[in-house]
Amino acid sequence: MIKAGIIGSTGYAGAELVRILWNHPQTEIVWYGSRSYVEQEYAAIYRNMFELVEGKCFDDNIEELASRADVIFTATPQGYLAGVLTEDILHKVKIVDLSADYRIKDVAVYEKWYGIEHKSPQFIEEAVYGLCEINRNKVKNARLVANPGCYTTCSILTAYPMVKEGLIEADTLIIDAKSGTSGAGRGAKLPNLFCEVNENIKAYGVASHRHTPEIEEQLGYAAGKEIRINFTPHLVPMNRGILVTEYANLKKKADGTYPVYEEIKAVYDSYYKKETFVRVLDKGVCPETKWVEGSNFVDINFVIDERTGRIIMMGALDNLVKGAAGQAVQNMNLLFGLPEKEGLMLVPMFP
Amino acid sequence: MIKAGIIGSTGYAGAELVRILWNHPQTEIVWYGSRSYVEQEYAAIYRNMFELVEGKCFDDNIEELASRADVIFTATPQGYLAGVLTEDILHKVKIVDLSADYRIKDVAVYEKWYGIEHKSPQFIEEAVYGLCEINRNKVKNARLVANPGCYTTCSILTAYPMVKEGLIEADTLIIDAKSGTSGAGRGAKLPNLFCEVNENIKAYGVASHRHTPEIEEQLGYAAGKEIRINFTPHLVPMNRGILVTEYANLKKKADGTYPVYEEIKAVYDSYYKKETFVRVLDKGVCPETKWVEGSNFVDINFVIDERTGRIIMMGALDNLVKGAAGQAVQNMNLLFGLPEKEGLMLVPMFP
Amino acid sequence: MIKAGIIGSTGYAGAELVRILWNHPQTEIVWYGSRSYVEQEYAAIYRNMFELVEGKCFDDNIEELASRADVIFTATPQGYLAGVLTEDILHKVKIVDLSADYRIKDVAVYEKWYGIEHKSPQFIEEAVYGLCEINRNKVKNARLVANPGCYTTCSILTAYPMVKEGLIEADTLIIDAKSGTSGAGRGAKLPNLFCEVNENIKAYGVASHRHTPEIEEQLGYAAGKEIRINFTPHLVPMNRGILVTEYANLKKKADGTYPVYEEIKAVYDSYYKKETFVRVLDKGVCPETKWVEGSNFVDINFVIDERTGRIIMMGALDNLVKGAAGQAVQNMNLLFGLPEKEGLMLVPMFP
Amino acid sequence: MIKAGIIGSTGYAGAELVRILWNHPQTEIVWYGSRSYVEQEYAAIYRNMFELVEGKCFDDNIEELASRADVIFTATPQGYLAGVLTEDILHKVKIVDLSADYRIKDVAVYEKWYGIEHKSPQFIEEAVYGLCEINRNKVKNARLVANPGCYTTCSILTAYPMVKEGLIEADTLIIDAKSGTSGAGRGAKLPNLFCEVNENIKAYGVASHRHTPEIEEQLGYAAGKEIRINFTPHLVPMNRGILVTEYANLKKKADGTYPVYEEIKAVYDSYYKKETFVRVLDKGVCPETKWVEGSNFVDINFVIDERTGRIIMMGALDNLVKGAAGQAVQNMNLLFGLPEKEGLMLVPMFP
Repeated sequence: MIKAGIIGSTGYAGAELVRILWNHPQTEIVWYGSRSYVEQEYAAIYRNMFELVEGKCFDDNIEELASRADVIFTATPQGYLAGVLTEDILHKVKIVDLSADYRIKDVAVYEKWYGIEHKSPQFIEEAVYGLCEINRNKVKNARLVANPGCYTTCSILTAYPMVKEGLIEADTLIIDAKSGTSGAGRGAKLPNLFCEVNENIKAYGVASHRHTPEIEEQLGYAAGKEIRINFTPHLVPMNRGILVTEYANLKKKADGTYPVYEEIKAVYDSYYKKETFVRVLDKGVCPETKWVEGSNFVDINFVIDERTGRIIMMGALDNLVKGAAGQAVQNMNLLFGLPEKEGLMLVPMFP
Repeated sequence: MIKAGIIGSTGYAGAELVRILWNHPQTEIVWYGSRSYVEQEYAAIYRNMFELVEGKCFDDNIEELASRADVIFTATPQGYLAGVLTEDILHKVKIVDLSADYRIKDVAVYEKWYGIEHKSPQFIEEAVYGLCEINRNKVKNARLVANPGCYTTCSILTAYPMVKEGLIEADTLIIDAKSGTSGAGRGAKLPNLFCEVNENIKAYGVASHRHTPEIEEQLGYAAGKEIRINFTPHLVPMNRGILVTEYANLKKKADGTYPVYEEIKAVYDSYYKKETFVRVLDKGVCPETKWVEGSNFVDINFVIDERTGRIIMMGALDNLVKGAAGQAVQNMNLLFGLPEKEGLMLVPMFP
Repeated sequence: MIKAGIIGSTGYAGAELVRILWNHPQTEIVWYGSRSYVEQEYAAIYRNMFELVEGKCFDDNIEELASRADVIFTATPQGYLAGVLTEDILHKVKIVDLSADYRIKDVAVYEKWYGIEHKSPQFIEEAVYGLCEINRNKVKNARLVANPGCYTTCSILTAYPMVKEGLIEADTLIIDAKSGTSGAGRGAKLPNLFCEVNENIKAYGVASHRHTPEIEEQLGYAAGKEIRINFTPHLVPMNRGILVTEYANLKKKADGTYPVYEEIKAVYDSYYKKETFVRVLDKGVCPETKWVEGSNFVDINFVIDERTGRIIMMGALDNLVKGAAGQAVQNMNLLFGLPEKEGLMLVPMFP
Repeated sequence: MIKAGIIGSTGYAGAELVRILWNHPQTEIVWYGSRSYVEQEYAAIYRNMFELVEGKCFDDNIEELASRADVIFTATPQGYLAGVLTEDILHKVKIVDLSADYRIKDVAVYEKWYGIEHKSPQFIEEAVYGLCEINRNKVKNARLVANPGCYTTCSILTAYPMVKEGLIEADTLIIDAKSGTSGAGRGAKLPNLFCEVNENIKAYGVASHRHTPEIEEQLGYAAGKEIRINFTPHLVPMNRGILVTEYANLKKKADGTYPVYEEIKAVYDSYYKKETFVRVLDKGVCPETKWVEGSNFVDINFVIDERTGRIIMMGALDNLVKGAAGQAVQNMNLLFGLPEKEGLMLVPMFP
């Protein structure tokens, strides 16, 4: 059994890790870390776990935890892990970091967009960006995995084949994203009150959201060059789910025409047909967040608009599963040589 | 492997059976029955099952199905099973009926409340009311299980120990129930449109809801006498979940005082401490439907009000799981000698 | 023009006062009081008022305000008004208090249920309980109106004719109430976050909610004796609306039978037919909160259950309008000799 | 008093007309038309109007209605008005058509996108596109007003100043729109059931939605040339509200730099500062649908992204008010020489 510790187990992403790992046949949770609820019963904070989880929350002592666990998940605010990580810890334990601390290779970019100093840039180089479908092989040998952001997982996987194959003009990419409210966390803030979110939709972080450089970096690798995109997140009155609608100019083929549906579909299938967790939908079917809720799936599809010469790509996932805890467990499976889908065949719940 | 067939697999309860059985280690679904979607791909109707379920919907041919399956689940409108059931079918296959056809022993009561003639009353006697926590032993040897209603499961389990032990005046029982909208089914009806349900709450079926006689019959057995109760359901703007708030006059003890919290708690624990799927919450914690969503749990608690001499009992469950498909699988496990919780340790999803 | 000041104008009830008074033809708002947002633009806090309200929030200086206004609305936490009210203030200005400070005549009851000391009990006697349909004439001559609570307005009006006419056994009254989330206020608290409320329903304050003694006092006046009732509030995932479902034993008539529908209906009509804001619905129609949203209406109906000898009464209102700001303006109209419905003919918004 | 008749008064847009006209000081509704509910009490179908509206629904007899009314609102399916309109009718009465029948000048475009034959193309020429802020003067003298679509009103007003002034490359315009569910109407269809919409978001009509050519035509007039855009609608789990997020490439100024915030803001203000119903928000504030709910306002703002050379424009309105019934009444006011905002100063309801 893999001994797993969770730092930040009382946030929504941390609690989702608990839900998933509870049913994982090869894992045992040994540490429920929490800054706010130390010494309190975990099941009194997340009552879904009543009679399922026994034990109290521990504090954030990562050094102590490193000597007890085989893997540590950090579902913590930006800057936490960078502030405490040491070679000694990485020597003892593998880490899957759900924060952004090691996602961006250029420390200056990180510090600019996040507005904080990076306290341990020496580990950035070795950290592997844990987007499993793309970096699977690198993850297997890593000590430190930077688990991708929720928006970024959805945004990148949806456009990846098109960018990688050079079928779109990458700099025309516009990502209009919509997220459920759990992405905003469990902090008691006025804008996240029920009455402020319900019956409402708004954009936020326009032209300034922190997931922008992460998407640009990863899709830039695929494009083989630096790219600049627009990314606009919106807050939707639902608990879970991210939907991205992505627009880009299609490149014409040598004969001056645009590729047809079957050609693009074949490209997507070549990337994702074998992927358990990426489902390219049938022609004409638009992804809906409800169809993936509670699961580790990403549903993807696209429409070609010959009138404008653009492709509209759409992707949907559950921000707490494939967008956070599920992908973190997928990374853990890779780190420990388990089947990648072990404990992750969660059937989407509908309705 | 148990071969399972579902008649009515494209309603919400039927689809939940598919979700649960898909992960059940001892079961294989061999028949996706549907009146409305015959010959259509099941995964095109419930897209959560895309790439998980292959195959098309069959019709309602229960005789054909009986020769292919070990167990049949009927998630069908009232009157369907009573209209087609034969001794020959029951000879070949076990049946878990999610409709009300065999729940009520007095056929006159059934016909009065449901307004239809019962076409096969000869099977009512042998049918076992499948409230597992109470009728576990009878279910084990049954051929035909009448799976309890969603409201009734919640209503009965919440009050059962109090009624059975004679601690309340059973005729003072008032059940105020609140349900998510999936209980109304997937039929395209105006009152179930999003804009009619959202931002709204109402009572319906006041003093006339069909689950009333079912509760009265079962709690009557516990009370050892016929009882009359009030049951009022309400429609709540959420997908899943039932909450019942039940009021009854407490009987005084021999010394003229009301029992105290610890005494009542001990009674509840004596009934439910060993039950996997019934969780009696800690003192002061009110059940919430969200804490059981997606799971087979019922969460129960109570408050004693000495001012009025009443006890307020509360219970919460997921109407599609413990209130329908989950309990049906629990019954299947009993019928086939499997561990009762096999395939049912679904962790509630929060948020 | 009546000059109105609002202390607590940045809570939900205060903001609703602004919305209603903005369209009131005889009123001008001269003071937007706020403890949290002093010196900030009101329209930057409630952006619905952008370009409609100009000016910044003032502090809580009630003495200053008393010399500038004709009427003060206090939409403030319990204890605020009791702590600052003076004879001098009441000499200058009329006050409609939306808090509970002057609702309960027995100061000991207030202090027990609210857990705070009452700082100015000398004004309790003269304060008029501003349930307009019942205390209309007293309000007209008052200086200090105690605006009823949201739950209490709905609970009392729904049962009032039955209690007043002695048609039910008042001590058997059980009120099961359901409220939208705006009733919990705009404070940033974890239980009111979107993800905690959405897709969830729960009871709270069971056998201990502060509106209980208020209902008991007022219905006690109607009954002509002290009564004890059960009141259980529930939190519903919607912004606005309160629905109460009330149960009571019907008294039999002299001939030993229960009254029939037409008899009870005639009683309700005798109380409410002339009331603009109370609508007794047609036979068989259950009140729904959505049908009164945004308006000052209370929709009421009832069902007689001869099987159990009980009547089930139902009432629905918008907690921020008839349950708070609307009724406060109705009281203001009475205080200043205006037509009672002036500025209050708000048509319910559907959907 | 203007005598108004509504054909299609029992759809959501028709019902909103009733709500608004009920409080309009210069209008009286003389005809509640309905195909589905003929002879039924209007207030039994829309219970918000109980005791406010008396009278039953009439049928669709527009000729009869034309002789009784001064203005007819047609809130009807596409093709209805085109099928019945005659010169005789237009001679007797003014018409505000909420359907798309006369919005598009090129009948071939209409027939292609709507898939139906236009039965009275002879009236297309004289019909005025009733986007009041832009075509105010033409509306005043019209007999037939084509009331704009909900998405189109929001989409056009948000981008109009930028297109008209030539500040963006019009062909790069991408409109990502999000709508509440009332836009889908009150028909009983499975995709609009509560459980299908709630906790879900999806795109639909991708690259094929019928509002596309309407936007292209109107913005084409502003651009002075034909344009092609992308328009993608999404269904959001809320009752009311449309939010558009629009992306376009900014043109550089003569000096090779992009315009700065103040320059763009001045342009928007020059168009909208005097407009009662268009509110250009303060810098940094994103429009939210909740802030305009129930009102005739459109809230607009923009962000310049120098990194990508694009402007992101955002607009929010209530699809049933400014997107349908409110704008229709605004047009009626223009047609009859009333103040444009008569009866339309509805304060947005929050929360």
